[in-house]
Amino acid sequence: MNQAHCLSFIEQPFPSKLNPKIQSLFGSLKQNSFALLESTPQPFQTTTSKRLAVCFSGGPAPGGHNVIVAIAKLCENHHNLFGVMGGFGGLIKGQLKPLTLTDCESYYNIGGFDLLKTDRTKLTKQAHYDAIKQVVKQHQLDAIIIIGGDDSQTNAIFLADALAELSCSVIGVPKTIDGDLRYPPYLPISFGFYSACDVYIELINNLIRDTQSIQKYWHFVKLMGRTSGHITHYVGTKTKADLFFLGEYLAKDSMTLSDLVKHIGDFILKSTHNKKPYGVICIPEGLLEWLPDIKQLINGLHLDPAIGDSAMAFSSLSATNKTILQQFPAYIQNQLLLERDAHGNIQLSRLETERLLIDLVKHYLAEQDPNFSFHGIPHFYGYEGRCTHPNSFDANFCTQLGHIAGSLALNGYTGYMAGIDPTHNPNQAYGIPIAQLLTHETRNNNTVVVVKKTTVLN
Amino acid sequence: MNQAHCLSFIEQPFPSKLNPKIQSLFGSLKQNSFALLESTPQPFQTTTSKRLAVCFSGGPAPGGHNVIVAIAKLCENHHNLFGVMGGFGGLIKGQLKPLTLTDCESYYNIGGFDLLKTDRTKLTKQAHYDAIKQVVKQHQLDAIIIIGGDDSQTNAIFLADALAELSCSVIGVPKTIDGDLRYPPYLPISFGFYSACDVYIELINNLIRDTQSIQKYWHFVKLMGRTSGHITHYVGTKTKADLFFLGEYLAKDSMTLSDLVKHIGDFILKSTHNKKPYGVICIPEGLLEWLPDIKQLINGLHLDPAIGDSAMAFSSLSATNKTILQQFPAYIQNQLLLERDAHGNIQLSRLETERLLIDLVKHYLAEQDPNFSFHGIPHFYGYEGRCTHPNSFDANFCTQLGHIAGSLALNGYTGYMAGIDPTHNPNQAYGIPIAQLLTHETRNNNTVVVVKKTTVLN
Repeated sequence: MNQAHCLSFIEQPFPSKLNPKIQSLFGSLKQNSFALLESTPQPFQTTTSKRLAVCFSGGPAPGGHNVIVAIAKLCENHHNLFGVMGGFGGLIKGQLKPLTLTDCESYYNIGGFDLLKTDRTKLTKQAHYDAIKQVVKQHQLDAIIIIGGDDSQTNAIFLADALAELSCSVIGVPKTIDGDLRYPPYLPISFGFYSACDVYIELINNLIRDTQSIQKYWHFVKLMGRTSGHITHYVGTKTKADLFFLGEYLAKDSMTLSDLVKHIGDFILKSTHNKKPYGVICIPEGLLEWLPDIKQLINGLHLDPAIGDSAMAFSSLSATNKTILQQFPAYIQNQLLLERDAHGNIQLSRLETERLLIDLVKHYLAEQDPNFSFHGIPHFYGYEGRCTHPNSFDANFCTQLGHIAGSLALNGYTGYMAGIDPTHNPNQAYGIPIAQLLTHETRNNNTVVVVKKTTVLN
Repeated sequence: MNQAHCLSFIEQPFPSKLNPKIQSLFGSLKQNSFALLESTPQPFQTTTSKRLAVCFSGGPAPGGHNVIVAIAKLCENHHNLFGVMGGFGGLIKGQLKPLTLTDCESYYNIGGFDLLKTDRTKLTKQAHYDAIKQVVKQHQLDAIIIIGGDDSQTNAIFLADALAELSCSVIGVPKTIDGDLRYPPYLPISFGFYSACDVYIELINNLIRDTQSIQKYWHFVKLMGRTSGHITHYVGTKTKADLFFLGEYLAKDSMTLSDLVKHIGDFILKSTHNKKPYGVICIPEGLLEWLPDIKQLINGLHLDPAIGDSAMAFSSLSATNKTILQQFPAYIQNQLLLERDAHGNIQLSRLETERLLIDLVKHYLAEQDPNFSFHGIPHFYGYEGRCTHPNSFDANFCTQLGHIAGSLALNGYTGYMAGIDPTHNPNQAYGIPIAQLLTHETRNNNTVVVVKKTTVLN
């Protein structure tokens, strides 16, 4: 960890052209917030002492503490670092505490975000920005570093614009186990992905050995990772699970839920016929959202969310959607009709897809052969992986990302996310202009400007 | 692994006196099958070549392959070793294959039982014993080594008696992650327990760090381990989970299910009041069987298992049992009324106790405060741990157990289980007479003679 010198950067044109409509949203940012920054071999010499704050946002990912230790190391003896307690919610409330290298270095290589805690507050109101401006003034902050995923980076770029008038930088560090925040060649992956996958891979390898030992049971493993199939793709490939499904491909093939159930059921029949009546099947958390029939149903439910009254919610559905819904067991029907998050959204991640598939496959198999013996065991691996200790890749990657983010902040840049490819180009740091990553997306029938999530296919 | 010399043993009186009724069940065993065997420093010199078979039985446990490699090492160049494919079921069918050190040494330190597979067949019929006698004759076996838990050791001692007329020894190796097969000071623990616990401890530590990072959610973790609370006790203590429950203590305190729900609910209320609205709660797989009200209900259901008709099954219950049953959500009521294993037993291990407790606690909390926010997340950790690679304790322990079991077999002893305390007395091997471990137990209202399982309290 001899990284106490601050990096300097040169500006390069960003390879793609920024959508002028998107650029117009950031009137307070100077032109150099949209360039690509490349680190140079010369260290950046800073004479003035600066005041930085660092903040976790969203779910934990392995290595987050190393990001903070690296920033603290960079600030040591020259600058003042503050830790924001409890994510954007804590930032709005001004929950800052001074943070020295001594305070945080025992957290190096330790999983979790417990040093500063985190939350899921999103900056949705002018009052949020106004409150943060007050905090910036009160603590005379020169920069805020946001360690977070795609939505947190969206917040970071809008916050960068809002804080430009106070000359306070906002810098992002790309965090998420989901693996959907990546911009090769500047950033091949977000931090935490490989460490979390290591946990899931070990558990699934254990399940595979178990089925090979006892020669029974079909394990259905749902893996965290939201909409995209990155985790399932990586874990499925590395473990040689019998089957794994990616929503991206199912959508491409226009597969409906019953197509999928038939596919799994037929695989199990064939495998059993071939004297292998056991196996492990992996699915991503966001599987259902990709299936065209389920997508249609969810859109229908979102259009008329008669929350709290399942009969009314059901009667307001189209005939097609009623048919789609009725294929589900009662517990899933209820979840779809009744349970919403604070914003009225269907909580797809809470749907027990792994159990649903077991129930539907069981039903399909019984139709094919009433005497067929099938025992499915559901698992959901998620929380277990996102707070594990960082593996050596993430431990090193996060140290580099923290150093880069701290350097960007001390240089006075704003609206940038730290980037590096630690495997192929470990001495080349980047500042990735967050504005260049924005896209228009439809969420609950509204168009919003957000940092683009990558899927397995793009 | 320089253990190719065969141990010799001397007979010592077993500290406790054998129940004559139990001894009378084993008329074919000689008196020295009931003594305690202690290894001596002199190696056992064997001139005749012997033919041994080794067999896994029951669920996998980490280290099983090391047992086999150690036996193969002992047999190398002098004796013939056979692997029984697929547990007692495979033994009955004569599924034996020659096994050399070369065949198995690449499995050293690898989890699972996949080298030979395993099954759950129990020796319940004379036809089973007759079939095994034929296999022993056909392969001219001098000994069979059974790697298994308490029920497998029960089978082993009855098989030892049956095979005495053929001068074929039966030797046991104490396997089970459940930790309920232990006889200190000769055997402090069965193999696999600590390795499986290591997996659960890592996962639960990750969950604890997650709750400390995001400061929400109550994780309810059910842990494998059947009736006894050994795994939950060890894991709960080592992880500092917020709460863990042992059926042994709940039964001692005559706690009913609703007492338990109130206890958990009040803990959550108090913890939330103290600004800690999150935590991790561990329960053993067999929790419910210990609660007096549930015990009574299960006995009632076993007395009149009107399987397949829930209305009839319900109407045949006593008024008290009806009340007990009706406190459950519908999915648990159905599981209790309808689902039975092949022997007509209620499959308590399949009951989703972790979900049941979340539902009941949620209901209790809503009664106390309709606005109380509670989100429980269920987990069941079991299969993930029992096929992990052995940790260093089990890797070494299993190598020793295999060497001891092989030595007992080559000495011609029968009805013994290998024993050693690798931590406190690593050079003293034991042969533990299985008959001395037998006890009378009531199972489904029948009295049976079985190897005693230990609980946390005895």
